[in-house]
Amino acid sequence: MTTLYNDPANFIDDALAGFLDLHADRVTGVPGGVVRSTETRAGKVAVVVGGGSGHYPAFYGVVGAGFADGAVVGNLFTSPSAHEAESVARSAHGDAGVLLTTGNYAGDVMNFTLAVERLRAAGIDAQYFPVTDDVASAPRGEEAKRRGIAGDFTVFKCASAAAEAGLPLAEVVRVASAANDATRTLGVAFDGCTMPGAQTPLFTVPDGAMGLGLGIHGEPGIADEPLPTAADLARILVDGVLADRPDVPPGRVAVILNGLGRTKYEELFVVWRDLVRLLRERGYEVVEPEVGELVTSLDMAGCSLTVMWLDEELERYWRAPADTPAYRKGAAAAAGERRAVIADGDAAVEADPASASDAPGRAAGAEVAAVIGDLAAMLAENEAELGRIDAVAGDGDHGRGMVKGSSAAAAAAAATAAAGAGPATVLGAAGREWAARAGGTSGVLWGALLEASGDQLGDSGTPDEAAVLRAVVAARDAVVRLGGAQLGDKTMVDSLTPFVTEMERRVAAGDRLPQAWAAAATVAREAADATASLTPRVGRARPLAERSLGTPDAGAISMALCLETVGRHLAGEDAT
Amino acid sequence: MTTLYNDPANFIDDALAGFLDLHADRVTGVPGGVVRSTETRAGKVAVVVGGGSGHYPAFYGVVGAGFADGAVVGNLFTSPSAHEAESVARSAHGDAGVLLTTGNYAGDVMNFTLAVERLRAAGIDAQYFPVTDDVASAPRGEEAKRRGIAGDFTVFKCASAAAEAGLPLAEVVRVASAANDATRTLGVAFDGCTMPGAQTPLFTVPDGAMGLGLGIHGEPGIADEPLPTAADLARILVDGVLADRPDVPPGRVAVILNGLGRTKYEELFVVWRDLVRLLRERGYEVVEPEVGELVTSLDMAGCSLTVMWLDEELERYWRAPADTPAYRKGAAAAAGERRAVIADGDAAVEADPASASDAPGRAAGAEVAAVIGDLAAMLAENEAELGRIDAVAGDGDHGRGMVKGSSAAAAAAAATAAAGAGPATVLGAAGREWAARAGGTSGVLWGALLEASGDQLGDSGTPDEAAVLRAVVAARDAVVRLGGAQLGDKTMVDSLTPFVTEMERRVAAGDRLPQAWAAAATVAREAADATASLTPRVGRARPLAERSLGTPDAGAISMALCLETVGRHLAGEDAT
Repeated sequence: MTTLYNDPANFIDDALAGFLDLHADRVTGVPGGVVRSTETRAGKVAVVVGGGSGHYPAFYGVVGAGFADGAVVGNLFTSPSAHEAESVARSAHGDAGVLLTTGNYAGDVMNFTLAVERLRAAGIDAQYFPVTDDVASAPRGEEAKRRGIAGDFTVFKCASAAAEAGLPLAEVVRVASAANDATRTLGVAFDGCTMPGAQTPLFTVPDGAMGLGLGIHGEPGIADEPLPTAADLARILVDGVLADRPDVPPGRVAVILNGLGRTKYEELFVVWRDLVRLLRERGYEVVEPEVGELVTSLDMAGCSLTVMWLDEELERYWRAPADTPAYRKGAAAAAGERRAVIADGDAAVEADPASASDAPGRAAGAEVAAVIGDLAAMLAENEAELGRIDAVAGDGDHGRGMVKGSSAAAAAAAATAAAGAGPATVLGAAGREWAARAGGTSGVLWGALLEASGDQLGDSGTPDEAAVLRAVVAARDAVVRLGGAQLGDKTMVDSLTPFVTEMERRVAAGDRLPQAWAAAATVAREAADATASLTPRVGRARPLAERSLGTPDAGAISMALCLETVGRHLAGEDAT
Repeated sequence: MTTLYNDPANFIDDALAGFLDLHADRVTGVPGGVVRSTETRAGKVAVVVGGGSGHYPAFYGVVGAGFADGAVVGNLFTSPSAHEAESVARSAHGDAGVLLTTGNYAGDVMNFTLAVERLRAAGIDAQYFPVTDDVASAPRGEEAKRRGIAGDFTVFKCASAAAEAGLPLAEVVRVASAANDATRTLGVAFDGCTMPGAQTPLFTVPDGAMGLGLGIHGEPGIADEPLPTAADLARILVDGVLADRPDVPPGRVAVILNGLGRTKYEELFVVWRDLVRLLRERGYEVVEPEVGELVTSLDMAGCSLTVMWLDEELERYWRAPADTPAYRKGAAAAAGERRAVIADGDAAVEADPASASDAPGRAAGAEVAAVIGDLAAMLAENEAELGRIDAVAGDGDHGRGMVKGSSAAAAAAAATAAAGAGPATVLGAAGREWAARAGGTSGVLWGALLEASGDQLGDSGTPDEAAVLRAVVAARDAVVRLGGAQLGDKTMVDSLTPFVTEMERRVAAGDRLPQAWAAAATVAREAADATASLTPRVGRARPLAERSLGTPDAGAISMALCLETVGRHLAGEDAT
């Protein structure tokens, strides 16, 4: 919803005042809207865009060199008045006439047409052009009835570039018309936007559904469909847009994948990956595409695909430079020599994994690999629960990181063991993979502790109780050294250290490995649960301490789960 | 929530692939992240930024000339591994060393420190610097424990510009450190973000509340406070940031008002308006501020204020040009002469309003102004209901437009009547104001119908039944001519035309005005209600027809309400 406002009735006046202050070097406020801060040069047609607000950066964000000379700024989703359109056009006008252009909405058409009549009556050469790119708003054959949505952007851009190039008014109108004829848009909505001061959105889309054929004024789509994957959405959009212009052979196209406001850039990039592939498969060459928020609808969730079929003239105007508060194109090219892609620096050939191991060592290596496989399976089962615990004070990614790390480690361990490696080599490979794939704090720590424990076990012979004890001590020391956490800091150290202490006691008392490990794992689990009463470690935000009280540390819990899993494996070993 | 993805586990891999395809002319993918598509020039330190993803345009969006040489791209909100950081640094490195820099998070610190050790071991001069700008995450005196949030941007920018300027590695680190020492950020959250594939957000903020001191990884704030107005929020942010650096005199500052993802540009502009005023009142000069989405957190709702206190050196680096996929600065200056602001073209002096009226005309003018006042009051009461009706098929702005128009018209009418004007002058002024202030379709039509009816009433004498009839016919004709709607198109014509027809019949039958008007208004109301069975008029999106079935047209309803209100006024007149 729209959260930040003072008087909802003055939302756009306030926003415009902030915008004008921010970009005072580039734009100037005039009654009814915004014009460039520079005079329109002699002989240049002025292009005045406009319509209601709530679409930033459309339209006042694109007033500047190479783009619009002025923007008429209506209230939220409401046409400005004829008086306002006339006022901005008078301010933007130089000496060569003015093109007023908006999306095709009844209010805009009436007000801007009236403004054109008044401008002409005052001796200013003026023309009006409405954009009709939305394929969902009227069928083929009735293109003139269609709404203007994100295709406003391609049409305004080309008309503005034509004016910048010095074309006379009639020619600028011709370019606008040609760009409009060549432009098609199809959009989808996932959720409606909420006006300032309103408690409910203008419309809602059912959970798990998508509105096909949205409007950019909070209008719902024409049909609710099941929410697709990103790849399926790419196909729906490409199919829908291309189907509306079936008689044109594939060729060069300008493309906009436009976000409505709440659908974020990284989501759009995911869709773009499949979308551009589909266009290429169908023979299209994509020219300087735009992926991002160009014509928004407050905080509406959704996106749209716009395609403009290019001829030589439209391509020239589409690619022409522009320099506005919200949109810049061309200008400074990247300097320097194009680089050759550098391969992964660590992809060096490893030594033969089996070279240092004997038969007992190979058996122990296989056992270690099996244990790491058990860990990966156990963590996959517990991913959601670990994420839930972590989300209380952290960012909820602990389960994901542990699963990514352990599954990569299990694969590396299995491959290394299958090649005949002993415990040190298997654990080294597993640790490096865990750290590389998991990322995050736990990734680097788990990678280090596996490597450190492997160093103590060696590759040959069957590790005895003393060797395993050395290994767990080395693992604990690696974690403490690297992470810098102390006992009581609410980290994995809080379960690992009690485990090591109990192991030392049990092994000193002569316990066999399975019994010692099981007893120590029980201690670790109790210690992990007890972290619920601790405050978080240094480095996390202190004030989060309060929230995390009563919840154990996810890292301590996952450590205890892993130690228990290893214990179960050793007990099973012992039983057979 | 995050809506668009394929396999949630591959969300960032997919997004990065789309981004790299989109910006293939500027950036290149390498194992672990992204580097510029050009070689790092001899003698230039490479700056490698990084951390987890979900923050676009941070951080891979700012790889390019004048900014980062490379970005290490971790999974969502998760540190990349040391291996990935090392890989990107090796790719970005030229011959003058590399600075690796991230926000201050345990995982990033560990992994990037390990990467630096490995790079040094391989003979590459490397340094690591963590950013600590978030004042909410640790108290004063413990600045080194603070998190890095949007202040990452100012620090990365200055360090990158210093590297671009040719400074050696130790000096680039010094600049990063100076920028960090001079930077403070405070953020607020209104709602949490939702990870791809998750059904619930990482945290929620209660309705009507705000989390103060958010994190950018979906961490909740440190305290829930009542949701403020935009102006109050500006004060909270300015007070919070300035209080953390009380010993520094006011001066020149770089400022970022950063949107987290769902808080949109127009909302940020509203906050900016008050925020920049507060900073100026306290003696600060704001240098090239940024208002927008620079460091996001998926679709999180919220924003943050970052202030960097500038000295000559930091100002130079802050203002240095940059050219990256998501951020450009400097380059092409706006061409042309700075314009003088042009005043509103229609602010010409009006003729003396009382010049053409006699005493009965002045009385009628006052009566007309009183009626328009009644309309404004009635419409203010019905604003929400009209908006609700309009939202079914339109954008829900009808009530707002009618209130804005009628209240402006009432004020103009009252002022003109008080100056002694007759009905024509009062209605003319009211109509012009209505059209100018309301905007939209209804604004221009209501403005025209008031002016047209005034022309028929004239300014002198008391209008009789015949004059009033001519006035309503002229009003209807103006609406039909301007709007182009036919009876049955589901517009205000559908109640206005039956009203006029009934008026004609009643006046011809000899009814006095109050009775004729009341009867015709009843017909208009019935006709307005009957529009529920009609499909929308041409020009609206056709497929919306289905949705709007069963709901009357908001314009027809508001017309009927206005006619009824006039009728009640005339009946009251008659009774007295």
